Amino acid sequence: MIIDCHGHYTTAPAAHQKFRDAQLARLKDPTAPAAQPGAMSDDEIRDSIERNQLRLQRERGADLTLFSPRASAMGHHIGNEAISSAWTRANNDLIKRVVDLYPENFVGVCQLPQSPGVPIANSTAELERCVCELGFVGCNLNPDPSGGHWTSPPLTDRHWYPFYEKMIELDVPAMIHVSASCNPNFHATGAHYINADTTAFMQFIEGDLFRDFPTLRFIIPHGGGAVPYHWGRYRGLADMLKRPPLEEHVMKNVFFDTCVYHQAGIDLLLRVIDIGNILFGSEMVGAVRGIDPRTGHYFDDTRRYIDALAISTAEKERIFATNARRVFPRLDALLKARGQ
Amino acid sequence: MIIDCHGHYTTAPAAHQKFRDAQLARLKDPTAPAAQPGAMSDDEIRDSIERNQLRLQRERGADLTLFSPRASAMGHHIGNEAISSAWTRANNDLIKRVVDLYPENFVGVCQLPQSPGVPIANSTAELERCVCELGFVGCNLNPDPSGGHWTSPPLTDRHWYPFYEKMIELDVPAMIHVSASCNPNFHATGAHYINADTTAFMQFIEGDLFRDFPTLRFIIPHGGGAVPYHWGRYRGLADMLKRPPLEEHVMKNVFFDTCVYHQAGIDLLLRVIDIGNILFGSEMVGAVRGIDPRTGHYFDDTRRYIDALAISTAEKERIFATNARRVFPRLDALLKARGQ
Repeated sequence: MIIDCHGHYTTAPAAHQKFRDAQLARLKDPTAPAAQPGAMSDDEIRDSIERNQLRLQRERGADLTLFSPRASAMGHHIGNEAISSAWTRANNDLIKRVVDLYPENFVGVCQLPQSPGVPIANSTAELERCVCELGFVGCNLNPDPSGGHWTSPPLTDRHWYPFYEKMIELDVPAMIHVSASCNPNFHATGAHYINADTTAFMQFIEGDLFRDFPTLRFIIPHGGGAVPYHWGRYRGLADMLKRPPLEEHVMKNVFFDTCVYHQAGIDLLLRVIDIGNILFGSEMVGAVRGIDPRTGHYFDDTRRYIDALAISTAEKERIFATNARRVFPRLDALLKARGQ
Repeated sequence: MIIDCHGHYTTAPAAHQKFRDAQLARLKDPTAPAAQPGAMSDDEIRDSIERNQLRLQRERGADLTLFSPRASAMGHHIGNEAISSAWTRANNDLIKRVVDLYPENFVGVCQLPQSPGVPIANSTAELERCVCELGFVGCNLNPDPSGGHWTSPPLTDRHWYPFYEKMIELDVPAMIHVSASCNPNFHATGAHYINADTTAFMQFIEGDLFRDFPTLRFIIPHGGGAVPYHWGRYRGLADMLKRPPLEEHVMKNVFFDTCVYHQAGIDLLLRVIDIGNILFGSEMVGAVRGIDPRTGHYFDDTRRYIDALAISTAEKERIFATNARRVFPRLDALLKARGQ
């Protein structure tokens, strides 16, 4: 079984974006009509999925994708709490429709309603709704709802604790995932995403978060940002900061996906990171959509890189499925209930 | 010959820090005495160098270090233009003293007087002084003088052009190097440095800087941040953004150092980046000062990782010296004048 832990609904029908456009129009002009979530037929949703994520899932031989709203469109920095909340709810409801149409192929992971300066406790209700009512198994947590200005406290700050408590109560992990950048220094998928991954990991080294929450689990996407490439640096920094070795201090709680779009990167990831900390992911249809002229295959067809590794079938099974079922216990329960 | 392109004077005598402390005291209390650069004897400087950088240079078998002021102490976000200017001048003058004491072992690279919101044209005079009067061969350019708030325009913006024109006139490259972070999200050496490296590279992909300045040369330190690990992502993003291949679009002008503190990272760097774009560097005595318990050697003893590569002696010579002499023509001229 192959579980892709990192997929976004980047191809939603146009009516969904129209809702967002109406939200933003009203933000500029309060006399504009109130925005209402777009009406979409099941066929429109089927079409958007079957021509894209489902087609690629089949072509590449994956079985199931943990599916969440488009990350770059979360736009937590735009508008205010009410706007973020309505947009988030519409996004999560749309994911639920995809899951209901293709329950064998997609399992839901939710976006959160976040806004700069708003207490994270305000995000727990939507997490609870998505997990308990919609059957989702995890969430995407944005460490920088300001969109590239980094005005929130580090993830190890008590600011975030009310949310972590809810995650633990519900037994769901979070993927740490920023959204678009409104800082012209940071290209969203080329700089802001990768920087956020690296930043979060270093925050975990500096802090003691997992002493307070020994069962809290995070996925750091995009192969852990810069971390595996600089594994010696992080091991050395942990030592200089008088932290325990990373394996004890961070890696019981932090997992990296395989969204690294070339063989050499995946080879490095496997060489330095324990296999139990690696979850298969592709981020498709996502940041990089083209075909690599050197290989003739899609850059984000990350299954090929795993297939090419000189590791055993049992080890590949851990990357492809077992690790994800351990990190997402609600996914495991769901699959077991289906006899999988 | 082994040239270390990345060394900072992190061990300056205490009088130097006292000057900085006096500057900062006066910033808080304008009635405090005016700060004056600290008085240091040659012996104090010798002691600070011989016990540290020079000892390690000898132990590790390097010949020459391109030596610049401590990056994390540049502190461009602190105070104002006058404070940054005086501190920068004192730092560069101190480097010059080290170089004069050990001309065979150290060649100067300067810090720049930068401040948030201040035109970069104001930095050219100090560059000119350091190159033309002090004999320095390059500079460190801070893409984020705000110290982690990223309030300056991207490096491809015309904001920076007056400085690039001076670099070209003087035929010196710049290492892109941030300083300390005053944003609690970013640990300086564990997040801010690496993020800045990644960010700069992505800015170069997005822009067309090297069309306007075909001979401009940058070193992106710390092994290029996250870039080599995500080389497929960057190749794919260039393609999506309708940019030419990276080899043409960026890599004629951008070089990575070898400040990557484990063998697997260096192996990846060499696997994906053309050898002509790689300059030996250690950043010692710098970000990571400890001994790796797995190898028994210093994390930042990067020569060992290069030595262990399965490449020819001629190829190693390019990494250790030839590439640096090409990127730093004034260094090459200096060495040639010495018959080296």
